[in-house]
Amino acid sequence: MKRYDERMTATRLSIDADRLYASLDALGRIGAYQDEHSGLVGVRRLALTAEDGAGRRHVVEQMRALGLSVTIDRIGNVYARREGRDPRAKPVLMGSHIDSVATAGRFDGCLGVLGGLEVVRTLDEAKRATRRPIVVAFFTEEEGARFSTDMLGSAVAARRIALDKAWALTDRAGKTVKGELEAIGFLGDAPVELDPPHAYVECHIEQGPMLRAANVDLGVVTGVQAIAWHELVITGRSAHAGTTPMELRRDPGVAAARIQLYLRAMVLSKRYTKQLRATVGVTQYLPGLVNVVPNRVHTTVNIRHPDDAVLKRALDELVAFYATIAKEERVEVQHKVTARTPNIAFAPRVQELVAKHATARGLSQQRIVSGAGHDAQEMAAVCPAGMVFVPGEYEGISHNPREFSTKEQCANGVNVMLDVVVELAEEEGV
Amino acid sequence: MKRYDERMTATRLSIDADRLYASLDALGRIGAYQDEHSGLVGVRRLALTAEDGAGRRHVVEQMRALGLSVTIDRIGNVYARREGRDPRAKPVLMGSHIDSVATAGRFDGCLGVLGGLEVVRTLDEAKRATRRPIVVAFFTEEEGARFSTDMLGSAVAARRIALDKAWALTDRAGKTVKGELEAIGFLGDAPVELDPPHAYVECHIEQGPMLRAANVDLGVVTGVQAIAWHELVITGRSAHAGTTPMELRRDPGVAAARIQLYLRAMVLSKRYTKQLRATVGVTQYLPGLVNVVPNRVHTTVNIRHPDDAVLKRALDELVAFYATIAKEERVEVQHKVTARTPNIAFAPRVQELVAKHATARGLSQQRIVSGAGHDAQEMAAVCPAGMVFVPGEYEGISHNPREFSTKEQCANGVNVMLDVVVELAEEEGV
Repeated sequence: MKRYDERMTATRLSIDADRLYASLDALGRIGAYQDEHSGLVGVRRLALTAEDGAGRRHVVEQMRALGLSVTIDRIGNVYARREGRDPRAKPVLMGSHIDSVATAGRFDGCLGVLGGLEVVRTLDEAKRATRRPIVVAFFTEEEGARFSTDMLGSAVAARRIALDKAWALTDRAGKTVKGELEAIGFLGDAPVELDPPHAYVECHIEQGPMLRAANVDLGVVTGVQAIAWHELVITGRSAHAGTTPMELRRDPGVAAARIQLYLRAMVLSKRYTKQLRATVGVTQYLPGLVNVVPNRVHTTVNIRHPDDAVLKRALDELVAFYATIAKEERVEVQHKVTARTPNIAFAPRVQELVAKHATARGLSQQRIVSGAGHDAQEMAAVCPAGMVFVPGEYEGISHNPREFSTKEQCANGVNVMLDVVVELAEEEGV
Repeated sequence: MKRYDERMTATRLSIDADRLYASLDALGRIGAYQDEHSGLVGVRRLALTAEDGAGRRHVVEQMRALGLSVTIDRIGNVYARREGRDPRAKPVLMGSHIDSVATAGRFDGCLGVLGGLEVVRTLDEAKRATRRPIVVAFFTEEEGARFSTDMLGSAVAARRIALDKAWALTDRAGKTVKGELEAIGFLGDAPVELDPPHAYVECHIEQGPMLRAANVDLGVVTGVQAIAWHELVITGRSAHAGTTPMELRRDPGVAAARIQLYLRAMVLSKRYTKQLRATVGVTQYLPGLVNVVPNRVHTTVNIRHPDDAVLKRALDELVAFYATIAKEERVEVQHKVTARTPNIAFAPRVQELVAKHATARGLSQQRIVSGAGHDAQEMAAVCPAGMVFVPGEYEGISHNPREFSTKEQCANGVNVMLDVVVELAEEEGV
């Protein structure tokens, strides 16, 4: 009897790159907006908005057209199942998300979901059955851009976040996740707790410059870096801008500016290796009048490192700096930890499969730690999980309308995902 | 024939301090809000809002109750006239404003308007006629807190700003001055161009710490410092917070933080004397997501100095720094000058009268340059104008619910305004 690898090579399938790319384009038209500055067309499909609802219906239609059985759970995660020869065997799951930040491109998340459907389409066309069922999923609010908690849907599925707590999260207008799920018709009735699949594979754009700079075709993702988010409220004292001498001010804006620049100095110092990332994404002065020293500033800190122990040291330094700033500027600095995930290591078995099939297809590759958080890190708590990264042009810019991967880059990633899924779906056992 | 001063001394009137203070309290209840942080009750009566409309009606009622003839002009300035013995003589005008910033106290502006009415009330009770008419005015949108242009009503009255341009100004929601005047019923039909009065006197709180620190009863205001406002739009490039290395970022937030701290350094350096004031009142990052390097920051700069030439030097340095920042941070820094007024010198004659009557009442005094802009500076372009400053407690804090002047401090200022107005109102000529 032939070894599995030989059979596989004999019948290696390939996806239709044009069809995949066209499907990315079609989904990217839903929630499209013209960026006023660059003139580029970007995507704004914040989780559970009308635009996200339209995107979801568009993808569900494709799932149904493929004859998949679609399940929606109570947090709005959507699963589409292709039956296997052995329906009692645990399925192989491909997934990602279709929600976006406010200034997105068309690849982030969508490549994994539409790539998963393209894998199914390719298997169907080849009339290829698999022993295990294959499921394609998209998860709710991966970005955290609307309800301030990223990987929300996959975290609830993986039992890291309780459903009630997730439902009660609110956006800036005070709208709840549950209410907004209802509003767009995606409050499903399937249980949220995911039955552990056999394995999980996600194809995603890198969202960074590394693979493109190294001129490799693919990234074999070894894990996800550790992440912390802080929400800060800095309280000072409002005062008249024209009269109040500097020494009498308690200006929370000055404190916020010092934190912004301190974070950059921490990164540039390289005392936490050159892999530390730190970002201030939100800053708003209140009351926000040209003529008044602000009395309050809302701001956020987003800080990451591949090594959890190093991140912890950096966070300790940062929190100590908050106290210093509070004292020196005579303001109050309150911080709330809104996200904190340790670094995640992906299953060695899935990494090996990605590397092996990339090599078999003649694709160059590199091991890489993900800078961004992904649904795969939640799935890694439930089953062997891994990711394939696709390089991005323009220094891998993402969360920006300029985000771009070529047709070939996308096809390479999804082809390797196809190979990995087909091999996993033949594995023995329940 | 007795000299005027002797007659005056013989019959020096005084206002009713309790009544004045009660009227400040009553107006301060309109638009009152509880400050969530301090627990103090402040005032939020932004120009031409429903709250401002209620405040206006409250003051107009008092004007009518005093038998004054009330005129509303096409920018919503309100004038209440008490006839003189010689109705052809130009009137003496007292004025200020009753609109407020979003986090105000009850004294800013209101003291001048309600003080003016208290002067009229005192003359009426004493059955004291004056040769010249006396007019009490309040001007529209002195604060500039809603429509981004301060001293708006008085500037239109003084012909510095054209009515059409003023009407077309919009707030953040896109509502126009004209539409909002109509909405609250204060789009009057009287011409806006003010017939030059004989003189203008305004009693106002200092809104700064100087008089209280010097422990004097009154400030004789010599003029208003030069003021410039910039509105900045800093454009960078949005990018993923987790992946984008620092050297690939074009972060407008970092640029804004550097401008904030540079301004403070300019002030603290004292290279523009210790009288330079600089404030960043507005900063907002867009899109404003914890997970995304912002692509745009809206921010403002407010910078002032008593000497216009010194302010000009400081502005030149600041604008050069914008260019440096743009280059170093690889962002675009656009600035628009939204306000620019030179320093204003008040009429020596009015200053002398304020000083003389303060002395006559046994009040200590100090010459002072106003740090804040006031309607009096617009009136100074039309007629001899001057101001009386009243000290403020708590380091003179203003634009803050903590703003506070005692009953005696307020009464001292309005008594001197009474004396000055009575003397001016007897002067000869048209």
